[in-house]
Amino acid sequence: MPEQLTLAGVRSGGKAALARALARIEKGPDDTDVIDLLSEAYRTPVAHVAGMTGPPGVGKSTLLNGLIQGWRGGGKTVACIAVDPSSRRSGGALLGDRTRLSTDPEDQGIFVRSMAARDRLGGLAGLTVQAMVLMRALFDVVLIETVGVGQSETDVVGVADTVVLCVQPGSGDSLQFMKAGIAEIPHVVAVTKADMGAVAERARADVVGALSLSDHPDSWEVPVLTLSAQQGRGIDELIAAIEGHAGHLRQSGQLDSLRQRQASGWLVDQVRERFGREGVRRAGYLGLERGESPFRRLSEVSRFLSPP
Amino acid sequence: MPEQLTLAGVRSGGKAALARALARIEKGPDDTDVIDLLSEAYRTPVAHVAGMTGPPGVGKSTLLNGLIQGWRGGGKTVACIAVDPSSRRSGGALLGDRTRLSTDPEDQGIFVRSMAARDRLGGLAGLTVQAMVLMRALFDVVLIETVGVGQSETDVVGVADTVVLCVQPGSGDSLQFMKAGIAEIPHVVAVTKADMGAVAERARADVVGALSLSDHPDSWEVPVLTLSAQQGRGIDELIAAIEGHAGHLRQSGQLDSLRQRQASGWLVDQVRERFGREGVRRAGYLGLERGESPFRRLSEVSRFLSPP
Repeated sequence: MPEQLTLAGVRSGGKAALARALARIEKGPDDTDVIDLLSEAYRTPVAHVAGMTGPPGVGKSTLLNGLIQGWRGGGKTVACIAVDPSSRRSGGALLGDRTRLSTDPEDQGIFVRSMAARDRLGGLAGLTVQAMVLMRALFDVVLIETVGVGQSETDVVGVADTVVLCVQPGSGDSLQFMKAGIAEIPHVVAVTKADMGAVAERARADVVGALSLSDHPDSWEVPVLTLSAQQGRGIDELIAAIEGHAGHLRQSGQLDSLRQRQASGWLVDQVRERFGREGVRRAGYLGLERGESPFRRLSEVSRFLSPP
Repeated sequence: MPEQLTLAGVRSGGKAALARALARIEKGPDDTDVIDLLSEAYRTPVAHVAGMTGPPGVGKSTLLNGLIQGWRGGGKTVACIAVDPSSRRSGGALLGDRTRLSTDPEDQGIFVRSMAARDRLGGLAGLTVQAMVLMRALFDVVLIETVGVGQSETDVVGVADTVVLCVQPGSGDSLQFMKAGIAEIPHVVAVTKADMGAVAERARADVVGALSLSDHPDSWEVPVLTLSAQQGRGIDELIAAIEGHAGHLRQSGQLDSLRQRQASGWLVDQVRERFGREGVRRAGYLGLERGESPFRRLSEVSRFLSPP
């Protein structure tokens, strides 16, 4: 007989119960008890949700370790979702390789889950949102890590209350992206590898300059920190900056409406994905004959399937 | 009266005619004359299509400049599509900032177009594929640049005959991705910044090691080159490697079937996107009330819209 799925049950059952609940969500996201569980969790949020994004090599994993230890040391419980971008082809999440997090498996106050970004359709939206909502009701902090350039950086906006963008000193492209419309996205910018000295300071100044050109929509002044995760410097400041933004969202009354907008955006993505999938199913065989034009075929399929 | 849209007309009209044709495709991708043009172009490919991808900061733009000049110097005509990943939020392609290509605007043998990756849905698939198909019928080489980690790297597989992955020495994450299922994707790996000496050599050795663990599906041995675009070293070798892979595809008879598979994949993506969009339209208002569960709402919408 399957375990009854309730928020209270998951809460009292610890990490093992949470892992089982996530498996149930994954297996039957439309099951009534799954929807009941998620709806209850959605209505009773506890955690602040921080999203961390940035290009590979920037040092996100080290930073993540520092953040988890910092919060845990302060007595907070932390759940972490590492979104694996490469799993579309390989088919599964690669927890060991990707997250490189050193956490104590016996500690019930730290839960780490690696999730596949399984499909382009819906992006992060898929199960990441369900997992986040459930964890948000159970922990003090939820951390979501995405490796990202461009698109993924905007994806994390759909799930996190506070977006931390990690920038590497000496990589001109980070600034390219700052210029190219990403500047409005982060609530905190972390310039990593401060041990690089002058280069890191220049990167910091460049980021501050780029930010000054953009208007942040919600009257929040974006802190730009330099950190050395290797030396353990700057983690406390980063935690303070994230908590500062959390306080700003609560005090300005924006948190609830932000989360409602995110949930609505997720809903639109999901409806689009479901109907898209259904369309492909109804279209039937979509292979092409040798030399057959995909453009003509698409126009035929579209005509056939949409009533005039 | 609008100009008649034919492949011969675009060919004889030079870059200005191509730019007008692309504008027509963008404006009315389902117009009969657009579909006729694209179908003709699809049936008469000329160019080899090379896709270049890799994380920001790796030096792709410099490399791209070198490749364009190298091919052009050899008398070939080159079209280049730079896919702008950041345009989802900012709403438009940012040609000037993003591509940093120094080409002679008078030269009719070089055409550069920056394209927005406008929507997650369909990814690269949207207009990039139409532009590529048209350019493929008109130029000797088509180069597609995507900034990418994870997902985008797999996207370019859907449009390019030869995928070149650029890897930066000293960035451990490149290797993470090689391990995490990306190793099967590139046909050529370019380790940039060879001027870094021993670090570049170690990166090269690491990549060779990672590749040796994966089976490349089509019996092609992936060349791993070290380049210094700054010093202009290695560009000839990269061109030779890309042309070597082009020859391999032709001689082994794989090129046609590869392109047919790509076109079929594009078709599936497009059908999914169109029906997804139609589903969102039919679902109507998808905003949420305060406290209303998006999970419950999704299950209601799904039930309402799919007949039992």
